[in-house]
Amino acid sequence: MVGGGPGSFIGPVHRMAAELDGAFELVAGAFSRDRQRSIAAADRYGVATDRAYADYRQMIAAEHDRPDGAEVVAVVTPNHLHFPVAQAALAAGIHVISDKPATATLAEALALQVMIDRAGVRYGLSYTYTGYPMVREARELCCGGELGAIRKVVVEYSQGWLSHAIERAGDRQAAWRADPEQAGVGGCIGDIGVHAFNIAEFVSGRQVAELCADLSSVVPGRALDDDCNMLLRFDNGAPGVLIASQIAAGDRNGLRLRVYGERGNLDWSHENPQILTVNWADRPTEILHAGAPYLRRGATRDSRLPSGHPEGFIEAFANIYRDFADDIRAGGDRGESLVPGIEAGIRGVAFVECAVAASRARAGWVKLDWSGA
Amino acid sequence: MVGGGPGSFIGPVHRMAAELDGAFELVAGAFSRDRQRSIAAADRYGVATDRAYADYRQMIAAEHDRPDGAEVVAVVTPNHLHFPVAQAALAAGIHVISDKPATATLAEALALQVMIDRAGVRYGLSYTYTGYPMVREARELCCGGELGAIRKVVVEYSQGWLSHAIERAGDRQAAWRADPEQAGVGGCIGDIGVHAFNIAEFVSGRQVAELCADLSSVVPGRALDDDCNMLLRFDNGAPGVLIASQIAAGDRNGLRLRVYGERGNLDWSHENPQILTVNWADRPTEILHAGAPYLRRGATRDSRLPSGHPEGFIEAFANIYRDFADDIRAGGDRGESLVPGIEAGIRGVAFVECAVAASRARAGWVKLDWSGA
Amino acid sequence: MVGGGPGSFIGPVHRMAAELDGAFELVAGAFSRDRQRSIAAADRYGVATDRAYADYRQMIAAEHDRPDGAEVVAVVTPNHLHFPVAQAALAAGIHVISDKPATATLAEALALQVMIDRAGVRYGLSYTYTGYPMVREARELCCGGELGAIRKVVVEYSQGWLSHAIERAGDRQAAWRADPEQAGVGGCIGDIGVHAFNIAEFVSGRQVAELCADLSSVVPGRALDDDCNMLLRFDNGAPGVLIASQIAAGDRNGLRLRVYGERGNLDWSHENPQILTVNWADRPTEILHAGAPYLRRGATRDSRLPSGHPEGFIEAFANIYRDFADDIRAGGDRGESLVPGIEAGIRGVAFVECAVAASRARAGWVKLDWSGA
Amino acid sequence: MVGGGPGSFIGPVHRMAAELDGAFELVAGAFSRDRQRSIAAADRYGVATDRAYADYRQMIAAEHDRPDGAEVVAVVTPNHLHFPVAQAALAAGIHVISDKPATATLAEALALQVMIDRAGVRYGLSYTYTGYPMVREARELCCGGELGAIRKVVVEYSQGWLSHAIERAGDRQAAWRADPEQAGVGGCIGDIGVHAFNIAEFVSGRQVAELCADLSSVVPGRALDDDCNMLLRFDNGAPGVLIASQIAAGDRNGLRLRVYGERGNLDWSHENPQILTVNWADRPTEILHAGAPYLRRGATRDSRLPSGHPEGFIEAFANIYRDFADDIRAGGDRGESLVPGIEAGIRGVAFVECAVAASRARAGWVKLDWSGA
Repeated sequence: MVGGGPGSFIGPVHRMAAELDGAFELVAGAFSRDRQRSIAAADRYGVATDRAYADYRQMIAAEHDRPDGAEVVAVVTPNHLHFPVAQAALAAGIHVISDKPATATLAEALALQVMIDRAGVRYGLSYTYTGYPMVREARELCCGGELGAIRKVVVEYSQGWLSHAIERAGDRQAAWRADPEQAGVGGCIGDIGVHAFNIAEFVSGRQVAELCADLSSVVPGRALDDDCNMLLRFDNGAPGVLIASQIAAGDRNGLRLRVYGERGNLDWSHENPQILTVNWADRPTEILHAGAPYLRRGATRDSRLPSGHPEGFIEAFANIYRDFADDIRAGGDRGESLVPGIEAGIRGVAFVECAVAASRARAGWVKLDWSGA
Repeated sequence: MVGGGPGSFIGPVHRMAAELDGAFELVAGAFSRDRQRSIAAADRYGVATDRAYADYRQMIAAEHDRPDGAEVVAVVTPNHLHFPVAQAALAAGIHVISDKPATATLAEALALQVMIDRAGVRYGLSYTYTGYPMVREARELCCGGELGAIRKVVVEYSQGWLSHAIERAGDRQAAWRADPEQAGVGGCIGDIGVHAFNIAEFVSGRQVAELCADLSSVVPGRALDDDCNMLLRFDNGAPGVLIASQIAAGDRNGLRLRVYGERGNLDWSHENPQILTVNWADRPTEILHAGAPYLRRGATRDSRLPSGHPEGFIEAFANIYRDFADDIRAGGDRGESLVPGIEAGIRGVAFVECAVAASRARAGWVKLDWSGA
Repeated sequence: MVGGGPGSFIGPVHRMAAELDGAFELVAGAFSRDRQRSIAAADRYGVATDRAYADYRQMIAAEHDRPDGAEVVAVVTPNHLHFPVAQAALAAGIHVISDKPATATLAEALALQVMIDRAGVRYGLSYTYTGYPMVREARELCCGGELGAIRKVVVEYSQGWLSHAIERAGDRQAAWRADPEQAGVGGCIGDIGVHAFNIAEFVSGRQVAELCADLSSVVPGRALDDDCNMLLRFDNGAPGVLIASQIAAGDRNGLRLRVYGERGNLDWSHENPQILTVNWADRPTEILHAGAPYLRRGATRDSRLPSGHPEGFIEAFANIYRDFADDIRAGGDRGESLVPGIEAGIRGVAFVECAVAASRARAGWVKLDWSGA
Repeated sequence: MVGGGPGSFIGPVHRMAAELDGAFELVAGAFSRDRQRSIAAADRYGVATDRAYADYRQMIAAEHDRPDGAEVVAVVTPNHLHFPVAQAALAAGIHVISDKPATATLAEALALQVMIDRAGVRYGLSYTYTGYPMVREARELCCGGELGAIRKVVVEYSQGWLSHAIERAGDRQAAWRADPEQAGVGGCIGDIGVHAFNIAEFVSGRQVAELCADLSSVVPGRALDDDCNMLLRFDNGAPGVLIASQIAAGDRNGLRLRVYGERGNLDWSHENPQILTVNWADRPTEILHAGAPYLRRGATRDSRLPSGHPEGFIEAFANIYRDFADDIRAGGDRGESLVPGIEAGIRGVAFVECAVAASRARAGWVKLDWSGA
């Protein structure tokens, strides 16, 4: 693991998710550039302290040389390091699973794509929400055509934790996200808007073709956006709306996706992730439950527990790790994976750059033409 | 009453709402331009058949001459008749309560404002949703400053009943709404988008200053929009989003308003109108219940029943009638009324015209500068 | 109307419900034994003051003699007067619609049954909750066998308004309910427990055969119960539970019914009365919406408004009045009515007497063998 | 671990929960009495195959002799083995964490208590639901007196998976639960009713003093109960109701607890475990969110993730393991633990035996006088 030092939120989540189903074990890490902090983190993670490094290059080199060296690198750093770390791992022939966004710039993402193709290893993005059983069920519903042609998509991701300038009051999580050097050009849009974008495409099976963005820095003094609202048009002409905010005081982690088809719509909320609501035009609303035998993907593929036993964020994350392990095992023969790869990564970074530029220029509608292919 | 003939949805609602609290009695009507249909309607409404007219001008003249003539005219026709009927009533010195939109064009609305000022009678718009107790409570919360400065408004109104071209299959309700001659320039936006606009301003206490609209005719062959999505900026710079649709297959009558302030947000849904949710930034979420003693407007001002006894659409409508009766009784001395008047009417019509024009021109951001004052 | 004087909660509800659909008009009343108060009530109800009486016998005699005399008497008094008022009306050949319980004692209820049979007029009980569209839909689901054999029933009715001894602090609504002279032998059980009992039988189509009751006076100094919990056995052996309370501080008017069959269960809550949830054993949960075309009783039979437009307590009550009007019009030829009659009334009073006696004696299981037939 | 062989539901949950926070590592197991199956399980668990035993006595002896031997035994077998396994571990001075019920009979539970006192090691029961953050918050609310004196408790646990005789169709989970030899005298009551009982006492801080039970075998041919309903009286005289069922077709894992005090009530549902609803008598309802800073136990003590990131069953289970690890580390000095111990175990077994006997005898009210002390 690179990143995830003391005080990290996402580092421990990666560790728990990776190990939950026994598919991975955390064995080494460059948890912090400060050696003592890296060792302290290793200790907490149950990693041997001689495999706690202060530099990711050093870690990759050392692990590469060990017979029992790490097989996968998890990149959990601030955004600006995603690219160089992934690059180094790929160069060493090590698989990479990375936090989103893939990279801080589109140019980097495109470069990374080339490297991945050459390296012949697996690259996955931990777009956590795609790991939820009912998000995957929603995708089946859309892609199987049961809703009819997709006519509209509304996606929201609303948080309130940056309602005040806590980045200037010592909050480490907030600090790097508010700093263009570490976060890139996107604030709220890069941190959570891109999740909303990704899940909208992942579930609907449609790609955003055009957008009209309104990004704001509501809290005075911020260099990056903390609120973004967007009109969308998908590749089939369907309209859409994307709303994301980190200044929505009182909201927690409110990701919600609605996809409308000719015959009905589906509605999923992260607040209550174990259910998927399908509102049909001409028959009763249906509530589908995670772990139920009637699911299109079956009861047990994305759930560990019987229906009625809540699973959450860590388990969704673990589904991605589990699938990534299966991908690695399968080599190139597994067909399409549910784990988002560099194509989704490119689209995400293109989306952020495009929206930020268009909003700044107050340009109205602009095309988002990176297919990621 | 003008309009509300056989097959009307809103006519009977007006009758029930007006009479619910005993403040009004339906005594006469030009329910249909067909005399037999008008008489049939009168019969169902319990109105004497000699006061069932086939022409609203005739009705106004006849009632004006009776010692027990109607004191108020309720305008419940398709949109294009709102203006001439109101005009005729005002000319006869009769109070008017009208369905929204006030008129079919902004020019008419401005003309109407002048007539109202001259006539010295009351004019009210039945923006039904402003009659709900928890919408009024939400307004108190915003206007009293408890949420802090308003930072964002998200309003949605989503229906699915026009998912198919039922206007060409004999549905009368759909037919006039899809016809520019009767509906005006707005389809979905004029029918329900304007409700969303109105409630957003009514509750937040802020006015929309700029908008960027994307209106579509999703069902092929429609002259008017059936889906509209909009970015907003309020007069204090706060961003907003307005989503309205009549092709949201599976949705019923999904009006939802969220207003975000510095200290928290409020969330009201028409699906469950008796509660108002307030998500605070730093303390537990609160659920406020209609009819509860702790409400800022008191338990009984907008509710007839103790908390826990659901009231709905008819009762909300009746609140508007009740307040309108109080306004009439009070003459000019009542101060600000909660019943939306011609100012709100002008803003609504301006909003529709502005959004339709901007969307057609793909103009990006445009100003909405009618204060209605 | 008899009862419903100034300060009454249920009197105005009866007036609104009876008149909502134009089937009835309130024309006379013995609203209070105090003539001035009766006249004051008449004034508020829009009733001519010369038809405001101070004595129900006088009212029945006077109305009976008028050519335009009242055709139906609504009994909305405290419980102890239900019997004598109904008796007087029946003797005059006037139809009766009465608040529950039918009478204060089982002996009275049985006597009333004989009188009704002789009088040849209609007698109905305003068990309000049976008027809700989704309660009626639930009944269709059970009685049509879709759930399979009924295996369990859980019914709750939980209020908090009597958490303190407000009957001794001047609350009129509380005062008569706490007084055995006016309320009869049941406190909470007679006021709301009997509603729970009635709806359980109404929906499930099964009758309670045995019960084991635990009634308490939780608030010190009360002569009657304010909390009751009960184990049930239905006529097919199915177990059940009935919970009712008026000291459930924080609850409003929480009536909830669950009926379990072999193939799934249904769940209805008065907090959100427009939906009915059906949890199936082997397929997704279904949410049915009032006013929807797919309902077993159709969209419009129990709803005035399109799906998505909330109706509530007054409208449910009005459904009972509307059906009662149809029953009267149909004479004896209408077949089974949905309006609960004296049979349901007898069962309700028997239930209260039986439970109170059994709980006092701590008798364990006792039979409830009044079929009401 | 003893038990948890191939096909086990709870074995893998123990493994995930124990390891989630790094406090424990699964190192050995008597997963099955069949050596091959035990080895197969070890393989899946990531346990060295030479530490996969076919007999728990052998495992305890072998591990006791290893310098790196297991420090804790997790007992995850069918009920009849809980006692002998715990006994053997205690005799070897090894800490025990056991599934509920503590033992199959009250006599065994009392004997176990003596052994634990003598062994000087920790003994904990994995009453999973006590590990949920909002259950613990609920306990704080009750025990801190904020609700006022406790007046009523309603607890339900409703499942549908045993609606048909799947124990005779090869379902292993169902088979042992339906067999008195393995399950003991309680069916539904021993499997889930005891959870409801435990959580009611855990949260309310009150003990059940008397009960009146109605247990049924709804599915024909069952030796043990599959549905149970119970009236309760707590030690302060407060009434209560306990409802449990495994034939509630359509229900999943519906544990719900409501505790009523003088000033309001709290309501927690396992369907949505991250929130706790508090309905106050005289102010708005509050919704408390797991992971929020305003919680009485703080944001992070029982949650790993920020508010809005769902945690579930595994995380609740892990909280118990985490606390158990802290208890072991603290030795005798930690004061009262939140991990239920043998006292709760004794009360649970006494509850089952008492209810089964009373229901069979149709004895009405009986005392439950085991304090467990």
